[in-house]
Amino acid sequence: MIYVVAKQFVDPGKLDEFLALARELVEKTNKLDAGCISYAMYQDMNDPSVITVLETWESQEALDQHGKAPHFTELIPKLGALCTKPPELNLYKKLF
Amino acid sequence: MIYVVAKQFVDPGKLDEFLALARELVEKTNKLDAGCISYAMYQDMNDPSVITVLETWESQEALDQHGKAPHFTELIPKLGALCTKPPELNLYKKLF
Repeated sequence: MIYVVAKQFVDPGKLDEFLALARELVEKTNKLDAGCISYAMYQDMNDPSVITVLETWESQEALDQHGKAPHFTELIPKLGALCTKPPELNLYKKLF
Repeated sequence: MIYVVAKQFVDPGKLDEFLALARELVEKTNKLDAGCISYAMYQDMNDPSVITVLETWESQEALDQHGKAPHFTELIPKLGALCTKPPELNLYKKLF
């Protein structure tokens, strides 16, 4: 199992636009991507412009395939253009 | 429900010591803290000195009580002393 935390720093004036696209990404990923255990979007309670995806994948292969899916390759650049800086991305294994 | 991501930057030479204390914190929190839905420790696959806790709490009250538990107040300063800088802490609500 692979766990991903992807923290995104959204331009506050573009948050509604970001969230509409992010919702599409979440829905299509959960519906279409093999090996997706969970994939959901979270909003920081102190800074609403910080939006983080928490992801659980069955394997590295499943995560790699997600990165090639049309919804990913089309939506990620659009989401990135609505952010003030690059995302902070970490891939984790569970310890205990 | 409240979701916490607590990213810790451990001194690489003190990782074993950190993980022994972290395991105790995880075990006691899951066993003893009311309103703890999940609380687990993850290691970055690219940088093993980055150790992150992913937490799910039933409510803000449950999270507040966790912060007052003896295992928390005793272990957190010891864990902090084994890190190279303060943790990066975010509290989230789920969007979708």
